[in-house]
Amino acid sequence: MTEIGRRGLMLVLSSPSGAGKTTISRRLLATERERMALSVSVTTRPARPGEVEGRDYFFIDKPRFAAMVANGELLEHANVFGNLYGTPRAAVDAALARGTDVLFDIDWQGTQQLRETARTDVVSIFVLPPDMASLEKRLRQRAQDSEEVVRGRMAKASDEMSHWAEYDYIVVNREIDVSVAQVHAILVAERLKRERQVGLGDFVRGLMGKR
Amino acid sequence: MTEIGRRGLMLVLSSPSGAGKTTISRRLLATERERMALSVSVTTRPARPGEVEGRDYFFIDKPRFAAMVANGELLEHANVFGNLYGTPRAAVDAALARGTDVLFDIDWQGTQQLRETARTDVVSIFVLPPDMASLEKRLRQRAQDSEEVVRGRMAKASDEMSHWAEYDYIVVNREIDVSVAQVHAILVAERLKRERQVGLGDFVRGLMGKR
Repeated sequence: MTEIGRRGLMLVLSSPSGAGKTTISRRLLATERERMALSVSVTTRPARPGEVEGRDYFFIDKPRFAAMVANGELLEHANVFGNLYGTPRAAVDAALARGTDVLFDIDWQGTQQLRETARTDVVSIFVLPPDMASLEKRLRQRAQDSEEVVRGRMAKASDEMSHWAEYDYIVVNREIDVSVAQVHAILVAERLKRERQVGLGDFVRGLMGKR
Repeated sequence: MTEIGRRGLMLVLSSPSGAGKTTISRRLLATERERMALSVSVTTRPARPGEVEGRDYFFIDKPRFAAMVANGELLEHANVFGNLYGTPRAAVDAALARGTDVLFDIDWQGTQQLRETARTDVVSIFVLPPDMASLEKRLRQRAQDSEEVVRGRMAKASDEMSHWAEYDYIVVNREIDVSVAQVHAILVAERLKRERQVGLGDFVRGLMGKR
């Protein structure tokens, strides 16, 4: 019997900061352990308290970042308020080659570039908050920052949200359990798409005895 | 707060007879009660024992069938070994208009026609058996028919299977519980597609305070 294989897919989760994307990502990765890897970005911004090198980001300096861009080592990169962010190509290619899906926690700029480099394998999901009050509450809880910093984050959240219409799927995060189940359903469905299953033709010819 | 609505979608399940499609349909409909309706076909073939008028089919005569075709009352219709089958348009339109999804248990001929009439709202799934032995076993259990009848059914199954590549999603029915969950995931995911959610633009503008 012919085995049916699978092409790895690139699942992008974007959302305004505070909409629950990080929680959804973590729970999805916990469920999918062996079958999905998180793409860890490089950034030139300093690590925040609690952030771990290689888990949250690879923290690099600007000359190293410029060299990666020049050498084509980044699948996408963006400048956010003077800080540079990028996705290293090598780890993604290696994961996809062994049939592992890759999860990307990137913003609309990164998503646009990723779509241009590898259109058919990118599946993009935008997570919306149910209302702005809950978003603001989470942004305030997150850090004891000045009113000005919080307002800056809200403005950035609005900017990010304005790009919702560029995404394949939209999840409104009213209840985190429902949202996690919905994102998981999208992943399961996308894996079942005909063009993502490798060897189906041989499998069916085998069934029909025409080999 | 703006409500997000939904356009109903047309979910097609096709498979060779005996691959488990009917079981999957029934369990999907049981889960989705209020949100999904089964499209009941008209046919000119006589009812088989156990079949119920209006549940399994609407049994009509050939002149009535011809009139429905002439009046454009059928979304699709096909001739299978001299028996005519068709999908009444009115019930489907009414369900979609009230935001109810419609499930179609039709063959490749019907699916091709449905795709032509309403391309963007059709989501098609082909269910494959894991092997031919299990298919044959089910076709034999189903009725105490002659060897010739069983062979005819197997030939028809092969013919149906040859059209797998025309479908959006492929489910290999190895374990019925897994297959039901997979078909349900496809339904959940398709409902979350951006273009199937009505009012998202207003919803996001409301979030951003730009009304």
